[in-house]
Amino acid sequence: MIFMKKVLVKEIYDGFEATDTIISLSGWVRTVRRSKEVGFIELNDGSCLKNLQIVISAEDENFNSITTGSAIKAEGCIIKSNREQGYELQAERLIIEGLADSGYPISKKRHSFEYLRTIAHLRCRTNTFSTIFRLRSLLTFAVHEYLNKNGFVYIATPCITSSDCEGAGETFKITTLDFNNIPKKQDGSVDYSKDFFGKESYMTVSGQLNLEPFCAAFGKVYTFGPSFRAENSNTTRHSAEFWQVEPEMAFMELPDIMSVIEDMTKYLINYLLEHGRNELEFCDTFIENGLIAKLENTVSVNFASVTYTEALDILQKSGENFEMPVKYGSFHTEWEKYLAEKVYKKPVFVTDYPKEAKSFYMRLNDDGKTVSATDLMFPGLGEIVGASAREERLDVLLERLNECGLDPEAYWWYLDLRKYGTFRHGGFGMGIERMMRYVTGMENIRDVIPFPRTPKNAEF
Amino acid sequence: MIFMKKVLVKEIYDGFEATDTIISLSGWVRTVRRSKEVGFIELNDGSCLKNLQIVISAEDENFNSITTGSAIKAEGCIIKSNREQGYELQAERLIIEGLADSGYPISKKRHSFEYLRTIAHLRCRTNTFSTIFRLRSLLTFAVHEYLNKNGFVYIATPCITSSDCEGAGETFKITTLDFNNIPKKQDGSVDYSKDFFGKESYMTVSGQLNLEPFCAAFGKVYTFGPSFRAENSNTTRHSAEFWQVEPEMAFMELPDIMSVIEDMTKYLINYLLEHGRNELEFCDTFIENGLIAKLENTVSVNFASVTYTEALDILQKSGENFEMPVKYGSFHTEWEKYLAEKVYKKPVFVTDYPKEAKSFYMRLNDDGKTVSATDLMFPGLGEIVGASAREERLDVLLERLNECGLDPEAYWWYLDLRKYGTFRHGGFGMGIERMMRYVTGMENIRDVIPFPRTPKNAEF
Repeated sequence: MIFMKKVLVKEIYDGFEATDTIISLSGWVRTVRRSKEVGFIELNDGSCLKNLQIVISAEDENFNSITTGSAIKAEGCIIKSNREQGYELQAERLIIEGLADSGYPISKKRHSFEYLRTIAHLRCRTNTFSTIFRLRSLLTFAVHEYLNKNGFVYIATPCITSSDCEGAGETFKITTLDFNNIPKKQDGSVDYSKDFFGKESYMTVSGQLNLEPFCAAFGKVYTFGPSFRAENSNTTRHSAEFWQVEPEMAFMELPDIMSVIEDMTKYLINYLLEHGRNELEFCDTFIENGLIAKLENTVSVNFASVTYTEALDILQKSGENFEMPVKYGSFHTEWEKYLAEKVYKKPVFVTDYPKEAKSFYMRLNDDGKTVSATDLMFPGLGEIVGASAREERLDVLLERLNECGLDPEAYWWYLDLRKYGTFRHGGFGMGIERMMRYVTGMENIRDVIPFPRTPKNAEF
Repeated sequence: MIFMKKVLVKEIYDGFEATDTIISLSGWVRTVRRSKEVGFIELNDGSCLKNLQIVISAEDENFNSITTGSAIKAEGCIIKSNREQGYELQAERLIIEGLADSGYPISKKRHSFEYLRTIAHLRCRTNTFSTIFRLRSLLTFAVHEYLNKNGFVYIATPCITSSDCEGAGETFKITTLDFNNIPKKQDGSVDYSKDFFGKESYMTVSGQLNLEPFCAAFGKVYTFGPSFRAENSNTTRHSAEFWQVEPEMAFMELPDIMSVIEDMTKYLINYLLEHGRNELEFCDTFIENGLIAKLENTVSVNFASVTYTEALDILQKSGENFEMPVKYGSFHTEWEKYLAEKVYKKPVFVTDYPKEAKSFYMRLNDDGKTVSATDLMFPGLGEIVGASAREERLDVLLERLNECGLDPEAYWWYLDLRKYGTFRHGGFGMGIERMMRYVTGMENIRDVIPFPRTPKNAEF
């Protein structure tokens, strides 16, 4: 038996030396068509977005049985072709790995995203979703690369937690109790001592609190993994399981943190412009016209910055008729979008929010009213990053816990960090799905997550 | 104000140009001592394992108030010193960021790992645990780098699932139901339609099943994230939340997959030998003598391979008195260890297990009794990787589901992959904590996880 080289489609387009050596290629059939004497197959092997054309005798028996979606192996020579792509495989032999049943639910016509969500296990074989998830992979790697290059130590913070830490209450419980027979204490309350962890346990909404102790050991740390929020919202922006990257930095104040956010954001986008060019071009053509120009603009401008109070003033004076009337104390997605899209026409940091609108751990400003926190707003999208300096002063932190109605006892170890060598620090959380929506133009969070989890939906 | 350069300890050891420029350094005090006229501080800023010595007048007021664990900023010049490390900071000024209370629970004496687990939020400030978690960060990055370099697409598979997929039953439930008031149907059974996802939902034990659809789109994919297992075992090897990397490859059979495992394992260890040299030397000295020699040996040998049946024969003929008598049908940690440590004295793949001992999705061999699966055993540790070819034949898969008492209906989408262009494929799962134990010499899984989750313990 002669050794036959297995080749990937990507290797061919990356510059394959066309010879008369026989090679083999395996992949899935995207389309099949025939002329009188010759059969054509568009084969995709997943190594890159592009297909390779396979040419074979129209009389080949296997050729005549294959259908869209089938897995095949083709053996033959790579030759230069006149087609745009430049190469094709002149096949001598087709081997069928697995045929696709006639019921194969993906056809040549364009399917709606709604429909494709119902076949999330197959939608990744379409051009659109193979583009999206290839970009998500690149984005993930770029995050790790940026942070490693810049001296951040990765910490695998736990997903299981025994404190509902932000006090938001929208957490999932995790349990091994039998729902048919919930153990009760004498007073009739649930006996959590019988549960796996011996107490009420939840899925984390953020790794930040668990990350801070490591910040005191390594200076610069990050966590990057899934977070969970039991928010009963069926919107294009919410998902019960989502990923965020959360860096945390010692001896830094808010302006330093904002510099890192801007630098990292631009690094990620530049990484995609360089390594995901074909995929972004696909998105530009089929999902959001002007996407690449938008991204190139994002990396070239200086991000704007405005305080919350100034921003409210701008919004109030704008004459715009907002659905939510502009009022001190909160911030709404429509205001966020307006500010980034209409006022600044570029990413903008809104800083120094009223403390009532933010979490207990954010550092109180000297005015006693606002906190040293910022949200980064992107045009067309709204908030994409949330950041703050953390309250490092023990007495102030205790007062804030108290104001927020949280029990200091539950935060004993978090408070310890303020007793033993407390230090100025802060960090941010960047939602990967939001970033994905910005860099691809996809509108719905369900279309940038492999298998999205939303209210009443954990299929697949 | 003159601009004062902020410097990291790592930058100094990486080759700092000693000048009379004043720089500033921030970090935490590891030790304080004094001679008559001069005070000495060992400062660690987390940028590397090593401390920098700070020298200051013994009369400095701030010097006289600082304690072990305090966070400080020091300003002065870096000078060459006669000490082993080669540099020290001649400080002109000390600024206190935060003092450590007298109760600071980490002292100069050596603490037991058991004790340090009770202060998991502070143990990362010890030399041992800053070494361990720095290595874990390097290992994580090496995993991503290897797989990206080799064309694997990263897929964020979900942690929330509606199927208890391996049928193992040791899964955590995730819920928003009120345990004081579990909704019931008319027949008295639990009404899961009222739960967040509208049906019983679990935390995943493995991303593999969700990964396979993407293998059919990209050829080579991987997932890397937390898995959850509600195993009520208090051992040094079990944790309710653990991380595994799971690559999956199309058009490959078991020997191909074994090559990738061996190649990746060696890449990871080589990466640590190169980038984590100081940390491994620390482990070699304080945790496992001979560690580096062990690792260098691991990357230089060819891994052995033996079938399950042959391995049983070897064990039976060994004359060794095992706690679990050697019998066809299963495989025990003590046998695994014996095989790798005593028989092969290097990593060994055990292949072709009896189907009863393995999961339904593993490919049935032609003998009808064994499956095309392998576990990689490491000396001193036992299984570190589990792998298999996946059953791609629809009829065989249906029969195996049936044999295992699993409902094919629940696997409709998994079966679809066998209907629409089925293909030979397979993959493996590598436990990051096991790998961590191997590369550091730490014996207990609780000491390689930032905040371990085990029965009755989800503190922090």
